[in-house]
Amino acid sequence: MKLLIPGPVTTRPEVRAALVHDFAPWDLDFHPLYAGVRARLLPIAGVGPETHACLPIQGSGHFVIEAALRTFVPREGKVLVPMTGSYAVRLTRLARECGREVLHVPMGERERVDPRAVAAALAADPAISHLAFVYSETSSGIVHDADALVGVARAHHRRVIIDAVSAFGALPLDLSAMPEVDAALFTANKCLEGIPGIAVAISPRERLVGRVGEAQSWCLDLADVHAHAERNGSGSFRFTPPAQVLNALSVALDLFAAEGGRERRLERYRANLKVFADGVRAVGLSPYLPRQLQGPIVFNVHAPDDPRWNLQSFVDRVKERGFVISNFFDTVTPSFRVGLIGALGPEDFREAVGAMDGALRELGIRNRKAA
Amino acid sequence: MKLLIPGPVTTRPEVRAALVHDFAPWDLDFHPLYAGVRARLLPIAGVGPETHACLPIQGSGHFVIEAALRTFVPREGKVLVPMTGSYAVRLTRLARECGREVLHVPMGERERVDPRAVAAALAADPAISHLAFVYSETSSGIVHDADALVGVARAHHRRVIIDAVSAFGALPLDLSAMPEVDAALFTANKCLEGIPGIAVAISPRERLVGRVGEAQSWCLDLADVHAHAERNGSGSFRFTPPAQVLNALSVALDLFAAEGGRERRLERYRANLKVFADGVRAVGLSPYLPRQLQGPIVFNVHAPDDPRWNLQSFVDRVKERGFVISNFFDTVTPSFRVGLIGALGPEDFREAVGAMDGALRELGIRNRKAA
Repeated sequence: MKLLIPGPVTTRPEVRAALVHDFAPWDLDFHPLYAGVRARLLPIAGVGPETHACLPIQGSGHFVIEAALRTFVPREGKVLVPMTGSYAVRLTRLARECGREVLHVPMGERERVDPRAVAAALAADPAISHLAFVYSETSSGIVHDADALVGVARAHHRRVIIDAVSAFGALPLDLSAMPEVDAALFTANKCLEGIPGIAVAISPRERLVGRVGEAQSWCLDLADVHAHAERNGSGSFRFTPPAQVLNALSVALDLFAAEGGRERRLERYRANLKVFADGVRAVGLSPYLPRQLQGPIVFNVHAPDDPRWNLQSFVDRVKERGFVISNFFDTVTPSFRVGLIGALGPEDFREAVGAMDGALRELGIRNRKAA
Repeated sequence: MKLLIPGPVTTRPEVRAALVHDFAPWDLDFHPLYAGVRARLLPIAGVGPETHACLPIQGSGHFVIEAALRTFVPREGKVLVPMTGSYAVRLTRLARECGREVLHVPMGERERVDPRAVAAALAADPAISHLAFVYSETSSGIVHDADALVGVARAHHRRVIIDAVSAFGALPLDLSAMPEVDAALFTANKCLEGIPGIAVAISPRERLVGRVGEAQSWCLDLADVHAHAERNGSGSFRFTPPAQVLNALSVALDLFAAEGGRERRLERYRANLKVFADGVRAVGLSPYLPRQLQGPIVFNVHAPDDPRWNLQSFVDRVKERGFVISNFFDTVTPSFRVGLIGALGPEDFREAVGAMDGALRELGIRNRKAA
């Protein structure tokens, strides 16, 4: 069964094979494994251990986003969030529940964030301490212009938090040129093609010093993750880590390097996108986004305008043909969603289009165009 | 390699084999697996789904302890913590960092919590809303009298939070007779013999209603975990779960049932304790605790009073013989620590004593008695 979802993604057998061991996380043999994972993640963000710290915590992407908001946004700070889609809504809830005020930059579902709108919002309220944005919005599939948005924050002397959960490992990110970024956030189980259970922040070391306890949460305090590693060595976790998941991530990073790194991975995902976008058009379906807005991570297809269309029935029939896709949609009008990432190549996406075509025939759907 | 540590524990090959699949956690086929794990954990605490909810969250034991404190202790509430050892210290830090006031019941390292001291502390301060205590203290190895402590809280009309992390699945816990317990907390990777990455609270359903948002943390809000499951079905997670770890826990629960449940598991651990305690005495070592205080989960042995003693050297030599033990001690005077839990039986502990005897000989340690 191949997972065509935005994560957890399909993994390679070598990654899954790394799970079948028992580990004592405080054993000296485990330390280099964990330290090696931390060290190898930094250059994917364009930085090294002199300037930045790699800060893993247990849990999903939401956990590390909340941790970054708690650690870096002052209690009286305000966060500006461009409303890119449902992950911007989630970012907002994470911030508000821990007591940080959030302002929005309103925008349409099928638009890139307008840097001028962000600039205007920052200029209008000096109490905004942070711009926080979703780099690759999983709901729409749009990749936003991280360089431009960080540039606007720089011009207005504000700090930045980047939700790079579905971007990291494929889309470019050079934190060495972005000193205003307090945290870039991601997980093991998206473009890094690992297993879920670990989320990570990469943050400037100098921003972590003297901040222990500011998060109002011991579990979600990135400054304490850093302080612990400084005291006990880079291979030491604060609390029991999901050791098997870390070992799988270590193998996933070996495979990432063997593939040629981030640029080669992005090329593969772009090749997946091209085959899939051409394929769905060829079988009469309508992509949700215009070509110039479509990113290489998540692809939405308009639900066919046919009374026999039923998303779960379609998902079930695609699954009988060997592919799992999302059984919900996250767009304003009905769609179905496919993840372009994971240990899959263009041939898989060619087959996936065939599976979808077969499923639509079986459902008796004649009009495949969007409503 | 066998792990003789208090967790993550040695697991059975069937549990580890359950990790090597890719899962889409929102797939309808995954829902019954997750719902089944939740349903099967409740009876281990003596309750059913009519009265109680099983609330898993991503992360380690600390995460669910913080979540329970946030969810159930009012912001102006106070928590009373008997100072059983380092897990009581951790409980204190978790509560204080999220702004809850903590009072302590002072006590010695080699004592059971005195219910009269708890009663006196509760009587002295009506602002104490919760008694929170560690059932099996991992630092000392002492099992405290949960029934007596909950009884004291009942008599004083206070609520209770039980850190049952290293107890659950082996030591008795009947929440049906303890309506004042807001949460019993545990993880997959201790006496349940699963893999780390999931922590769980079992809480009365009626205490979860109307509480969403009180935790001041979306990630660590147990009432929201409950509300989500009520809205979306028991098989639905809020955020990406460590799906492989859940599948392993499902298999671990199959094996738990096949063994005969909690009482049979406790019998095996008690058999491990007997073989190990007799064994260390027979090779001239001194147990840290008197027999009547020694629990069946964690066993500390006094460091030998010999200038050649070095804990890491000893650990390394025991490891060469196939057993991993903790490479730090968590007692007032130097010791070494062994976990009695996990997928191991008395024969393993007989061999472990032999390994330790061999390691001591190799280190040239003559005087094995405590200082």
